Amino acid sequence: MLQPVEEIGKIAAETGIFFHIDAVQGAGKVPFDVRRFGCHLLSISAHKMHGPKGIGAMFIRRGTPIEPLLVGGSHERRLRAGTENVPGIVGLAKAAELAMHSLADGTIDRLATMRDSLEEAILRIPGTGVNGSIDGERKVPRVANTTNIWFDQLEGEALVIALDLKGVSVSGGSACHSGATEPSHVLMAMGLDKTRARTSLRFSLLKTANGADIDHVLQVVPQAVEHLRALAPVAAGTLG
Amino acid sequence: MLQPVEEIGKIAAETGIFFHIDAVQGAGKVPFDVRRFGCHLLSISAHKMHGPKGIGAMFIRRGTPIEPLLVGGSHERRLRAGTENVPGIVGLAKAAELAMHSLADGTIDRLATMRDSLEEAILRIPGTGVNGSIDGERKVPRVANTTNIWFDQLEGEALVIALDLKGVSVSGGSACHSGATEPSHVLMAMGLDKTRARTSLRFSLLKTANGADIDHVLQVVPQAVEHLRALAPVAAGTLG
Repeated sequence: MLQPVEEIGKIAAETGIFFHIDAVQGAGKVPFDVRRFGCHLLSISAHKMHGPKGIGAMFIRRGTPIEPLLVGGSHERRLRAGTENVPGIVGLAKAAELAMHSLADGTIDRLATMRDSLEEAILRIPGTGVNGSIDGERKVPRVANTTNIWFDQLEGEALVIALDLKGVSVSGGSACHSGATEPSHVLMAMGLDKTRARTSLRFSLLKTANGADIDHVLQVVPQAVEHLRALAPVAAGTLG
Repeated sequence: MLQPVEEIGKIAAETGIFFHIDAVQGAGKVPFDVRRFGCHLLSISAHKMHGPKGIGAMFIRRGTPIEPLLVGGSHERRLRAGTENVPGIVGLAKAAELAMHSLADGTIDRLATMRDSLEEAILRIPGTGVNGSIDGERKVPRVANTTNIWFDQLEGEALVIALDLKGVSVSGGSACHSGATEPSHVLMAMGLDKTRARTSLRFSLLKTANGADIDHVLQVVPQAVEHLRALAPVAAGTLG
């Protein structure tokens, strides 16, 4: 779900609060302009824009007081010690450039349409729903390529593994806690109870996704859900 | 200059002090074994072993109390938050493997011989000497591929630029302070005065260096030194 960062920026400016935006998921998927946001800091990461892993960038508005976490060298104006990862920096720049093109050339709109049809088809499975919707209305502002869906009477991690075996990679928790088996803290913060959060999966489409990929997902997901529910039904009442 | 880390490790063990070794320059050039060193922590970096930039590794002896600098995710046993740079990790592992081979197959010995002959030839230029030598004796323990040489009556940075124009990359300061114009804090800590430190350059040989490279360096260095000394002689007495 997209946050109203422009409004938050105005409140921050009025109250003199420093405002940082984590734009890692949004960069390349939503057009944005740091000047309009009124933020002091904004972070992006290359690997969320089809760029290399291990490299990110931070916008720092001139005059923002900031202290380094990594010290010991004079690199990057003394704000981050360590030999600069030049190939990574070039990769990030190229990825950002290509991401800007994708926003302009209709790739992102195509992705949103594809995500919507994927979502619609998955929701035809009984006992499913979209997390982040308001009163059942799915059209809340969000990035184009992801959907987060709960599957009643199912252990999310079991479905992650079942789909992985069929060549479909989905995510159970937050990307920040890969390998963790705890329910997503983000979903919990959004008001979901622990049981619902545990049954939830995130589907993300790459920019290269095509109709055949969607068809494959729609073939394997309903089968896997039915199979797992039949095998190990969890206690009733998880719709709560 | 190689430090007597094994002895330091023994002293650390006797006195209960935690011992970290910065092995970034030594890894792949000197055989080592963390168990023999008695260190608690040891760091290496891929790009100093012909691997990718932006990735390193730290040995942590079991039971060593350590706190993360980067928090917010559960990655790497909660010690370093952030999506793992998998291509970087694989690159580091491969670089380390190849570096182990280089130690075993004579590459490093060949490099040391080549460095020695480069050094010998440069020292034929009047008013030069090796930093890190003890009482003029050059054969102190050190890594195979580098030498640090002072050039009397010369501004080191001027020679860096002159050699760069001839296709030879050398370093004036410490690698930790690229872009800084201050004399190397490492040379100063070794007891050199500021003037001597300013005239000093580090020559590093890649594993791929060959005789033709050395010939080229030996052709351009004496010419550049003579040219710069004639152009802008600094105050006499810098031998001090």
